[in-house]
Amino acid sequence: MNTIEVCFSPKLYEDRLTRDNFVVVIVDILRATTSICTAFKNGAKSLIPVPSIEEAKEYKKKGYIVASEKDGKVLDFADFGNSAFDFSEENVKGKVVAYSTTNGTKAIELAKDAEQVVMGSFINLRALSDWLIDKDKNVVILCAGWKNKFNLEDSVFAGVLVENLIDSGNFDPDCDSALAALDLWKTAETDLLGFIEKAAHRHRLKKLGLDDVLEYSFTLNTSDVVPVLKDGKIVCAKRV
Amino acid sequence: MNTIEVCFSPKLYEDRLTRDNFVVVIVDILRATTSICTAFKNGAKSLIPVPSIEEAKEYKKKGYIVASEKDGKVLDFADFGNSAFDFSEENVKGKVVAYSTTNGTKAIELAKDAEQVVMGSFINLRALSDWLIDKDKNVVILCAGWKNKFNLEDSVFAGVLVENLIDSGNFDPDCDSALAALDLWKTAETDLLGFIEKAAHRHRLKKLGLDDVLEYSFTLNTSDVVPVLKDGKIVCAKRV
Repeated sequence: MNTIEVCFSPKLYEDRLTRDNFVVVIVDILRATTSICTAFKNGAKSLIPVPSIEEAKEYKKKGYIVASEKDGKVLDFADFGNSAFDFSEENVKGKVVAYSTTNGTKAIELAKDAEQVVMGSFINLRALSDWLIDKDKNVVILCAGWKNKFNLEDSVFAGVLVENLIDSGNFDPDCDSALAALDLWKTAETDLLGFIEKAAHRHRLKKLGLDDVLEYSFTLNTSDVVPVLKDGKIVCAKRV
Repeated sequence: MNTIEVCFSPKLYEDRLTRDNFVVVIVDILRATTSICTAFKNGAKSLIPVPSIEEAKEYKKKGYIVASEKDGKVLDFADFGNSAFDFSEENVKGKVVAYSTTNGTKAIELAKDAEQVVMGSFINLRALSDWLIDKDKNVVILCAGWKNKFNLEDSVFAGVLVENLIDSGNFDPDCDSALAALDLWKTAETDLLGFIEKAAHRHRLKKLGLDDVLEYSFTLNTSDVVPVLKDGKIVCAKRV
């Protein structure tokens, strides 16, 4: 039996129980992991996660396509921003894209001791679940949160993933956070978008005028991609 | 309007939003804060939180009554252990007790920048809620957790306290963790003990043979005490 552990914030990763034989699922629903899944759904070749805007500029100079924004606005040197809708087929098909994401890069750096690092979002939930069940290893779900704090959208996603893994019969949640995430999902599932409307982060996105991507981000299973980290790049382990 | 923020682990305290004009509620249901409330319910004069067993030994040498245990067993130099049932009227009435609690002392140390630090448990929930409503300041609920991890019992308690504060009309939860705690409480409230049976920590307590104190620890409002920190000691702000 494999274990499932949930870290509600990168700050809680260091003290996790799971130490051996594990895969880390990185979750940043608004927006990194949803955008990354969208990029592969639309045919991107690979993504290079870039930790800062300065380094994103360097990639631009080297001739890469660059996705970068600050406070919800596309930066002048960048080709497009970080919204899932920016990773359109027109923008990414067949291309290597340097993607500036503070949260995403930080989480990937934290998870480097894992056997494999994979990206989770509502849009690739079923494909991700099947891939993890097939992997048959312990799972740590690492929520990016918001400025190191707990957030609802990442935690509720952790809950539905916990449910899928338990349902397979080969996973057992042995920490309270996995049980709590599952309870939150059960509260949210009949009206996921309504539940998320409560989230503090949503109000921030609304202020930034990024409200358009919410319905898309909370729609399940619109893609079969499974983006994984390989040699510092994100590539697609599975694409249907 | 005052804010309410919940930190699900001491690790998340540093990144909290609330910075000014706030009271910290320390929550360690199993067992420090339930035991502290019980001590005052049974007439203790004050408690001295002691960070280590070595320092507890020093207090014993100085002639203090000492509560100290390791792995659920009373230490040979101590007068009694850390279970709520150890803080009986016979053991504590009119006395100053040195109480060795790693989690409790750590949380108190963290919260030293707050205007006031108060202890919360299910047994003093109503009294604590009324005291906080009367204080009329921002509230940070600091869950001690289990080895820096999220735990269900402290989080569910945070939820019912959030509910009471919102119901007063003068508090507004402006972080996702307060909303999630409230949802967990709503899931738990019809069968609190059954809900807690799921918690990993309970299994640990069972192993330690401390199962007897669970029903007591999850019974609401059996005491009207409000223990607060004052000059490094815990004293009773209110006793009925």
